[in-house]
Amino acid sequence: MSDSSAGSDAIFEGIKWDGQGLIPVVVQDEKAGDVVMVAYMNKEALALTQETKRAHYYSRSRKKLWLKGETSGHFQVVKSIFLDCDGDTLLLKVDQTTAACHTGYWSCFYRMWDNTWKPVGEKVFDEHAVYGDRT
Amino acid sequence: MSDSSAGSDAIFEGIKWDGQGLIPVVVQDEKAGDVVMVAYMNKEALALTQETKRAHYYSRSRKKLWLKGETSGHFQVVKSIFLDCDGDTLLLKVDQTTAACHTGYWSCFYRMWDNTWKPVGEKVFDEHAVYGDRT
Repeated sequence: MSDSSAGSDAIFEGIKWDGQGLIPVVVQDEKAGDVVMVAYMNKEALALTQETKRAHYYSRSRKKLWLKGETSGHFQVVKSIFLDCDGDTLLLKVDQTTAACHTGYWSCFYRMWDNTWKPVGEKVFDEHAVYGDRT
Repeated sequence: MSDSSAGSDAIFEGIKWDGQGLIPVVVQDEKAGDVVMVAYMNKEALALTQETKRAHYYSRSRKKLWLKGETSGHFQVVKSIFLDCDGDTLLLKVDQTTAACHTGYWSCFYRMWDNTWKPVGEKVFDEHAVYGDRT
């Protein structure tokens, strides 16, 4: 066990990790009420989140721990953590800095079904300026 | 293709189904703003949801299509459907009848971390009266 998770094992009780040792996490901005993203945590990410009050996740594509905001500065200050009835999904209520989505939208759920997946809302930052021209 | 999904294929565009042909769905009560549950849809469930405006899911444990409210009467009238930036998660904004959780709580996320997973909020219905004494 890493130092970062020392003493935080109690939060793991009742959590049902999936076959990859992960749990999906719904993230809601506490003030606005908007669901801004869904990501995944492993035990280390949850322990670090609890300890630092900054949301950490496990990137399934990059296969590594990830501090939300480490590149963009768009951190999530965690206000509260909820577990669902089945123990297989978490909900974080956060104070989202600037925007949650890497596309520049406030929420990752910026496309609404209206005969097509239509972008709604406005971009709040320029993703190229923040992340560079990654392809 | 079943009749129920006839003509509704456009909504599938841009959706990345997981290895089991499913997509996680975050459900938010539009009026209250609360995240009330997370469930999974397959293509048939999404097509039926779009067609009927009543949320349908695919139960991973029972391995079958499921109309939310079919037993309890606690239907979800779908107001809008959002897709996230990666195309791998949906968000439904709904009008939730009575309560979302089979435990009797309004939201499935009724346990908040406070040194233990502490139930918060109040039960709004008696789950034994609604579902019977299933064990």
